[in-house]
Amino acid sequence: MTGHLAVVGLGPGDARFLTAEAEDALASAQALYGYAPYLDRVAARAGQSRHASENREEPTRAAAALRHATQGARVAIVSGGDPGVFAMAAAICETIETGPESWRALDLTIVPGITAMLAVAARIGAPLGHDFCALSLSDNLKPWELIERRLDAAAGAGFVLALYNPVSRTRRWQLGSALERLRRHLPASTPVVFGRAVGRPDERVSVVMLEAADAAQADMATLVIVGSRETRVIDRTGRGPLVYTPRAAAEVSA
Amino acid sequence: MTGHLAVVGLGPGDARFLTAEAEDALASAQALYGYAPYLDRVAARAGQSRHASENREEPTRAAAALRHATQGARVAIVSGGDPGVFAMAAAICETIETGPESWRALDLTIVPGITAMLAVAARIGAPLGHDFCALSLSDNLKPWELIERRLDAAAGAGFVLALYNPVSRTRRWQLGSALERLRRHLPASTPVVFGRAVGRPDERVSVVMLEAADAAQADMATLVIVGSRETRVIDRTGRGPLVYTPRAAAEVSA
Repeated sequence: MTGHLAVVGLGPGDARFLTAEAEDALASAQALYGYAPYLDRVAARAGQSRHASENREEPTRAAAALRHATQGARVAIVSGGDPGVFAMAAAICETIETGPESWRALDLTIVPGITAMLAVAARIGAPLGHDFCALSLSDNLKPWELIERRLDAAAGAGFVLALYNPVSRTRRWQLGSALERLRRHLPASTPVVFGRAVGRPDERVSVVMLEAADAAQADMATLVIVGSRETRVIDRTGRGPLVYTPRAAAEVSA
Repeated sequence: MTGHLAVVGLGPGDARFLTAEAEDALASAQALYGYAPYLDRVAARAGQSRHASENREEPTRAAAALRHATQGARVAIVSGGDPGVFAMAAAICETIETGPESWRALDLTIVPGITAMLAVAARIGAPLGHDFCALSLSDNLKPWELIERRLDAAAGAGFVLALYNPVSRTRRWQLGSALERLRRHLPASTPVVFGRAVGRPDERVSVVMLEAADAAQADMATLVIVGSRETRVIDRTGRGPLVYTPRAAAEVSA
């Protein structure tokens, strides 16, 4: 067995978020697999084959990359952000678990990347400076009732919330419903950050109060951070506001 | 105002985790501030002054870096992991909020990095592949009762847990108490990952079942990930196990 599979996190969109390890993994691969818009971010290299696929085809893509690597090739499968956060690494593990024994014997490396919530937080201050949860609002793979239960538990216990996959073409009401639910737990003045396409030319990061937060501000490229009761906004003359959650916390009322 | 302050995430310990943006911020700084062991990771450059401080001195360090930058210098303050996750960015924001007006006018950039939970997760598979929480077990800045409430809320609602600051020289019982509490919510077979010093020569990553998890396995350089009911272990012949949390989840029993 000489093959190798690297699952590589590209970060949120710009080459400046790439780590040295990710750069090396991409440079040494003989074949690249990935969702087409992510593959497009990777510079072409001579002698490297490229295998683009659609967004919803994670298991098929994972199996193709695993097969290719077990034939002896150095294969890299790319992922936006961090492969371990709502991305390709879990799909690869699922595929390995149900696949042939040779896939378990494969040399596998997962290369971490800057996940969207870290990039958005860095742009606006330090909203994730204290305890927080990362929650996907997609109910394609779990029931909406479970998402509601997690929103209640996290906001009720004073966690800041990073909401991944807030909307998609087919999921239009989920973010509005989640914001409505969070208003039961949190003051109207709680800061909400909408971070869109951070690190790309069409980047847009804004802060509103929970009472004014409108799901229409989000699209498929948006990551939403909802503060806790402790999260604060610092207004700055001539610059955008800073949003941060202090390192210290008092007991939160129920 | 020509000064600039960059708060730079170095990642978990090895230069291969540095992003291109972090590398540029370090190279262009005239002065570097930071906790001594983090500063030691940054290559010396001619003409750059270095200002090392102790671990507990975040506010003092933040104020010194802000003062230096407002005098017109390009200053970088370094942070392990990601500056926005239990690290320097919140301390900088707190200091700006209570400081002179000139600090609010300063050109401030926060450069995200690979935080410990992403590096540990990547080493072992994809334990953070579904909804998860990041929780600091340090009760220096919040009451222990609040930490218990958050452990209950997160584990009860099916979040995977990434536990930062599990132990320190003066905090010896907290991790054991947290594991005991999590046993009320989670099956004895729930996977627990101890990830120590990932990316450093003394790296050690291990997986045990919750019933066998022993706080003595952790030290100050350890990040602990406690799975949910959905988290799975894939045994591999001749390789370490993979731990992952599937992308799909069913309703979790209360």
